[in-house]
Amino acid sequence: MSRISAISEIVRSSQADAALLSGEVDLIYATGETALEGQCVIFADDTAVFITDGRYTEAANAQLIPKGFTVTERSSVIPAMSVVQNLLSERGVQKLLYEDDVLTVQQFAKMREQLRCELLPLSGRIAALRACKSADEVACIVKAQRIAEQALETLYGKLHEGMTEREAAALLNYEMALLGSEKPSFDTILLFGENTSRPHGVPSDRRLRRGDFVLADFGAVCCGYHSDMTRTAAFGTVTDEMRCVYETVLAAQAAAEAVAAEGIPCCEMHKAAAAVISAAGYGEYFTHALGHSVGLEIHESPVAALRCEEPLRNGVVMTDEPGIYIAGRFGVRIEDMLLIDGDTPQNLTKAPKKLRVL
Amino acid sequence: MSRISAISEIVRSSQADAALLSGEVDLIYATGETALEGQCVIFADDTAVFITDGRYTEAANAQLIPKGFTVTERSSVIPAMSVVQNLLSERGVQKLLYEDDVLTVQQFAKMREQLRCELLPLSGRIAALRACKSADEVACIVKAQRIAEQALETLYGKLHEGMTEREAAALLNYEMALLGSEKPSFDTILLFGENTSRPHGVPSDRRLRRGDFVLADFGAVCCGYHSDMTRTAAFGTVTDEMRCVYETVLAAQAAAEAVAAEGIPCCEMHKAAAAVISAAGYGEYFTHALGHSVGLEIHESPVAALRCEEPLRNGVVMTDEPGIYIAGRFGVRIEDMLLIDGDTPQNLTKAPKKLRVL
Repeated sequence: MSRISAISEIVRSSQADAALLSGEVDLIYATGETALEGQCVIFADDTAVFITDGRYTEAANAQLIPKGFTVTERSSVIPAMSVVQNLLSERGVQKLLYEDDVLTVQQFAKMREQLRCELLPLSGRIAALRACKSADEVACIVKAQRIAEQALETLYGKLHEGMTEREAAALLNYEMALLGSEKPSFDTILLFGENTSRPHGVPSDRRLRRGDFVLADFGAVCCGYHSDMTRTAAFGTVTDEMRCVYETVLAAQAAAEAVAAEGIPCCEMHKAAAAVISAAGYGEYFTHALGHSVGLEIHESPVAALRCEEPLRNGVVMTDEPGIYIAGRFGVRIEDMLLIDGDTPQNLTKAPKKLRVL
Repeated sequence: MSRISAISEIVRSSQADAALLSGEVDLIYATGETALEGQCVIFADDTAVFITDGRYTEAANAQLIPKGFTVTERSSVIPAMSVVQNLLSERGVQKLLYEDDVLTVQQFAKMREQLRCELLPLSGRIAALRACKSADEVACIVKAQRIAEQALETLYGKLHEGMTEREAAALLNYEMALLGSEKPSFDTILLFGENTSRPHGVPSDRRLRRGDFVLADFGAVCCGYHSDMTRTAAFGTVTDEMRCVYETVLAAQAAAEAVAAEGIPCCEMHKAAAAVISAAGYGEYFTHALGHSVGLEIHESPVAALRCEEPLRNGVVMTDEPGIYIAGRFGVRIEDMLLIDGDTPQNLTKAPKKLRVL
C-alpha cells in the first residue's frame, strides 16, 4: 500500500478528504494491477475503496482485498457516481481531489452535477509521483526492453527480400507477445527504404529490397510498463551516404547521453544532439524533439524537447532518439532509454548500435 | 470533403465561425486518414486547415492536399496553439467550437489561456454524426469482421492441449495482422476453462485442457474501423450443463436480435436478452450490459444497456453479447454485430454459432 500512502499524503497536503481516480494509468499505479476498471477512492487516512462492476468483481476481489483495499461491486443499473456519492457521504468527504489531466470537460461537468462536494484538481501531482521510477518500476521497463531486443533479433534472422513492412511488423509483435509482452507499447513503426523518412510512418505493403534501410521503432509492455527502442539497419548493401547519416545520428545520440545528468534542464539533451546534427549539415532534417519519458504511459513528462526547461530528476526514464529524415530517400533514427542517475545515466537499452548490414 | 461539409454545417448551425479538432478519432473522421496527428480547423465555409509537425508533414501533404485541405507545418519549437491562434486571427474567427468530449479539464484550461476567442462546446455533435454509419463505413467494419472470423478459424485449427491462453491470443492477433488488420480492436480476451467466467479476463499462462470452454472476444481494425465478436467453443468434451448454459445464451442473443429495430429504445435489446436468461434461472449470472455501438472507437454510443432509453437509429452498429458467468467454473458469451436497418437488423457477423466441440 505504499502508493496508496503516497496518494493519501497528496490528499492531506491539499487539505482535502479524499481523491477519486478512474483513469486507466492512475488505477494501475494505485492498485498495482493492470486489468481492472472502476473508481478508486483514496482517503486521507491511508485507506482505499475500489468500486467496480460485475465484469471485474472476481478479479478485484482476488487481487485487491489481499492488498488492503475494500472492494465494492455496483450493479450495472446504478450509475457509478451515485455509488461514489454514497461512499463520500458515509465517510464525510467534503473536499475531493479529481483527475483534471484525465477527465474530459464533459465528464467533469457530469461529475460536478452528480457529486455533492467541493472538487479540487489534482494538477498533475500523481503524474509527478509517477515521473521518478522506483527500482521495481525500472525492473518492469527493463524486462519489457529485453523482450523487445530478443524479438528484434528474431525478426532480423527472418527478414527476407520481398517481405512486406506489415508482415515484418506482425512478426515482431507476435514474437514480443510469445516472450510475454502484454501488448505492443504503441503501434509498431516498421519501415523499409524510402518509407524510413517518415518519423511516424505506418507499415504498408512495401516489400523489402536489397539496399534498403530497415527502421524499427517499437516496444513491449510488462506489468503495464512500456519500453521504447529504435534501431535502423541496412539490408544487403549500404551506401557511403547512408553510413555517413547513420554515424551522424549515432554521434548525436551519444552527445545527448553525455549531458543527461541529474539537475540539468531537459532541453540540454535535445540541444546537445541537435548541435551534432547541425554541425554535420543535416540540421533541417532533424524534425522532432529528442525524447520523452516512458513508464505506465508511452509518452510521459518531462520531455527532452527545446521547450522543456524542467531539470532532470533521478529516476526519470527518458528516451534519446535523434533522427535524420531525407524525404523520399531514407531516414535513420536510433533510440535508447536512459535512466537518470546522478552524473551518468544508466542506459537501459542493450541492443548493439554499430551499423548492421543484414 | 463530405464529412468536412457536415462538420461545417455543425459550425454554421451553432452560430460559430470554426471548429477545432485534435482528438484521434475526430481527426480520422474528418480527414479519412488513420495515421496523422495535429490540429484540424474546419471553417463555416467548408474549408479546412490541417496543422501538423515534421513527423507527419510528408504524409499529410500526400494524403490531405488532394482532398482539398490546406496543410501547415509548424516547427516543434512553436506551440501548436500559437499556430492555431494565428490562423484564427487571419480568418477572423470569434466563436470556436471545441471537443469537450476529448479535451481534458487541464488541456481545456490551457487552450482557454492561449486562444483569444469565445469557446463553445461541440457537445457530442460529431459523435452523433459518427453514430449512424455510411455504407463505406459499414464496409470497413465488415472487412475487419471477415479478417477476425478467418483468424479465429485458423486459431481453432491450431489449438492443442497444453497451449497457453497467452500463446493462443498471440497467434490470433498475429493471424489478424497477416490478414491486414491494422491492430487488435482492443486487448484480445482469450480464456480457457474456469477463466471464462471473467467477462474481461486477461490471457494468462493457463494451459488448455480437454473439457475446457475456449472463449475468444476480439476484433480487427480496418481503416480505423473496429470489429467485435465473441465465440465460445468446447475443447475435447462438453457436459450437459455447459450445453444448457450455451443454448440459453444463444437464445438470449436471438431474442435481442429479434427486437433490434429502428425506433425502439436501446434498452429493449438488453431486456429481451435478460428475460431469456432470467427465465432459464441464470439471471444473477448475466452481469453486464448487452452491448455497445462500434465504429472508429470500440465503445461508442448509444449502448444496449438498461439505462439507455435512446431510440435505435438506422446505421447504428450495435453489439449483441449476452453472457452467463459462473465464478470459478465457466462462462459463455456469444457476440455478433447488428447493423440497425428498419424492422430487421443486418447481422454483420457470419461465424457459425452452433456449439462447436473442437
